[in-house]
Amino acid sequence: MTLRVGVVGGGQLARMMIAPAVEIGIELSVLAEQEGMAAKLAASAVGDYHDEQTVLDFARGVDVVTFDHEHVPQPVLRALVDAGVAVHPGPDALQYAQDKLAMRARLDELGMPQPDWAAVSDVAQLQAFLDDHGGRAVVKTPRGGYDGKGVRVVSVATEAEDWFAALAEDAHGGALLAEELVDFRRELSQQVARRPSGPVMAYPVVETVQRDGVCAEVIAPAPHISTRLAEVAGQVGVAIAAGLEVTGMLAVEMFETTDDRVLVNELAMRPHNSGHWSQDGAVTSQFEQHLRAVLDLPLGDPAPRQPWAVMVNILGGPAEGSIDARFAEVMAEHPDVKIHTYGKDPRPGRKVGHVNAVGDDLDDVVYDARAAAAFFAD
Amino acid sequence: MTLRVGVVGGGQLARMMIAPAVEIGIELSVLAEQEGMAAKLAASAVGDYHDEQTVLDFARGVDVVTFDHEHVPQPVLRALVDAGVAVHPGPDALQYAQDKLAMRARLDELGMPQPDWAAVSDVAQLQAFLDDHGGRAVVKTPRGGYDGKGVRVVSVATEAEDWFAALAEDAHGGALLAEELVDFRRELSQQVARRPSGPVMAYPVVETVQRDGVCAEVIAPAPHISTRLAEVAGQVGVAIAAGLEVTGMLAVEMFETTDDRVLVNELAMRPHNSGHWSQDGAVTSQFEQHLRAVLDLPLGDPAPRQPWAVMVNILGGPAEGSIDARFAEVMAEHPDVKIHTYGKDPRPGRKVGHVNAVGDDLDDVVYDARAAAAFFAD
Repeated sequence: MTLRVGVVGGGQLARMMIAPAVEIGIELSVLAEQEGMAAKLAASAVGDYHDEQTVLDFARGVDVVTFDHEHVPQPVLRALVDAGVAVHPGPDALQYAQDKLAMRARLDELGMPQPDWAAVSDVAQLQAFLDDHGGRAVVKTPRGGYDGKGVRVVSVATEAEDWFAALAEDAHGGALLAEELVDFRRELSQQVARRPSGPVMAYPVVETVQRDGVCAEVIAPAPHISTRLAEVAGQVGVAIAAGLEVTGMLAVEMFETTDDRVLVNELAMRPHNSGHWSQDGAVTSQFEQHLRAVLDLPLGDPAPRQPWAVMVNILGGPAEGSIDARFAEVMAEHPDVKIHTYGKDPRPGRKVGHVNAVGDDLDDVVYDARAAAAFFAD
Repeated sequence: MTLRVGVVGGGQLARMMIAPAVEIGIELSVLAEQEGMAAKLAASAVGDYHDEQTVLDFARGVDVVTFDHEHVPQPVLRALVDAGVAVHPGPDALQYAQDKLAMRARLDELGMPQPDWAAVSDVAQLQAFLDDHGGRAVVKTPRGGYDGKGVRVVSVATEAEDWFAALAEDAHGGALLAEELVDFRRELSQQVARRPSGPVMAYPVVETVQRDGVCAEVIAPAPHISTRLAEVAGQVGVAIAAGLEVTGMLAVEMFETTDDRVLVNELAMRPHNSGHWSQDGAVTSQFEQHLRAVLDLPLGDPAPRQPWAVMVNILGGPAEGSIDARFAEVMAEHPDVKIHTYGKDPRPGRKVGHVNAVGDDLDDVVYDARAAAAFFAD
């Protein structure tokens, strides 16, 4: 008998579960959206995760179902639960990662620190929110946004007119999420792992650097924040994992405000880009931790192995030639940097890989990681 | 285009190449001896590696062929080279891992430190060797031995009579290898990686603890030896890698004698049990290093990540139930220990996995690794 984890979705997060699964001795299988995806080595099925029967068939061969992304529709998730499948994170938790309005409402109930927000159903409501918040706001589509998509900073409500029009066409009706434009010093991410039976383990809070709404760089632990704020971030992460009954990895993206508070920005209920440093920088990587958590196995030590770890994304990749054609140069110049690529073709803006560097001196580590990643860009 | 490495042999060494291959973005495929082997996830073909056509067909789909073991016959290796396939290590190097008599003769030519030895073709010759070496000697079959098999300590030559009889039946004739019984303090292993283009990188020399001829435990770096002897070990490793033109990983197993010398015991031209600590204890694991080396990519940093790393093999596994049924207990008690299992069924004496522990205090690390491994035994 072998423990069997099934991952819905064949992207890089599923791919990066392969290494710890093989090492520990967990059988990983993947339901991929199409052939040749990042996680193809473990793909045991190819099919549409919107289709209930496809997902039920896939689930039959595994002990627990988990996810590469949060897009599996609630009816499909509920059908899995009804069929007796262990699903982690479960539909009750995932709804808050799928719907930003539901997330905001629930975090308010839990007393979590977050920006002012409102559900706005039309231009007039958005304009009222703008008028109350200094004439600028962030507008988000509650569903389907990622990497800066579905997010817009507006100063007049008509700038979201097209989204309101799309809402009106949507049979479900609904509203957009308007959020206060937070005056922040930097962005943080707090990761937490939680088992179905309850135990929780928090990683050190990290600093994330975004470019054009996409994560570009992560420094672990967050180098510039106070011990108190790091503790608060950890407490918020643990409280959200427990309050939403998240199982597996949870990432809480936060703003560190100029007046020294943290405010929750986004949630992700899966391994997350802000935790890739842990592959080479922590005793237990987020991918191993996710597998342990969804199997309800005791969690691993999330402590850093070295004082500093820096992750830099490879965005887009080389304009000419393949990614691996750059390996020789990077490896020659940076024998201590760890290269991770996802088997994806280069394309502008696409996350095709990342590098991790670890060490004692933050400046050195940052330089090392950035310089190595630069070899993959043109 | 992706770099493609093909591994002949589907055992745990091939399995443990999967993780770094997936992470870096190297396509790994495996020619497995049968279905369901340790490296099954990457098995693209199942077939007999003694069959030239089977191996040639497998090689067609990859950029370089390497090995899980040293048992591929020379004619098959030569056929690959003749067909223009990149083979690492190549047949010229592998002959010395396949034939212990050839190895001893070549190491003498290279001036490497080794025990007194002789090729003995009959009982009389062995008795003469015994008489010259205090009445005890180690007798080895030149081919096919591993993990203590094909090795016998004798004090009268007739104790090897059955092996001489088998030799006589062998159409090739031949001889046994007689070696001086070395008075050693402990056993060491020196690993070296070498690229086809020449560059070499040495790992720190480690101490190996054998039980019943099988590696039970490894401590990295070797804790009790002098700086001078560590340097000598490194020099011997590098000289052998260069002298035999080994490509990929080389392990040189050595005796540390009571008079403070090192003597070469065995060679392995592949990742080796004595290097499993590097998965969690070195910047570049031996499995990543092997892939880099056989692809002639720049080698990674072999430096330890922490002062100490200890590997303890899981030999046999649980007498009752499956290996993974023990995960929960081990993980609960040892959240910082890294578990590696090979997808093999428990069987007395069989290597079914190992654990790695790393840290600053050797006593703690040894305790941690041994205690964790003990959960898998009955």
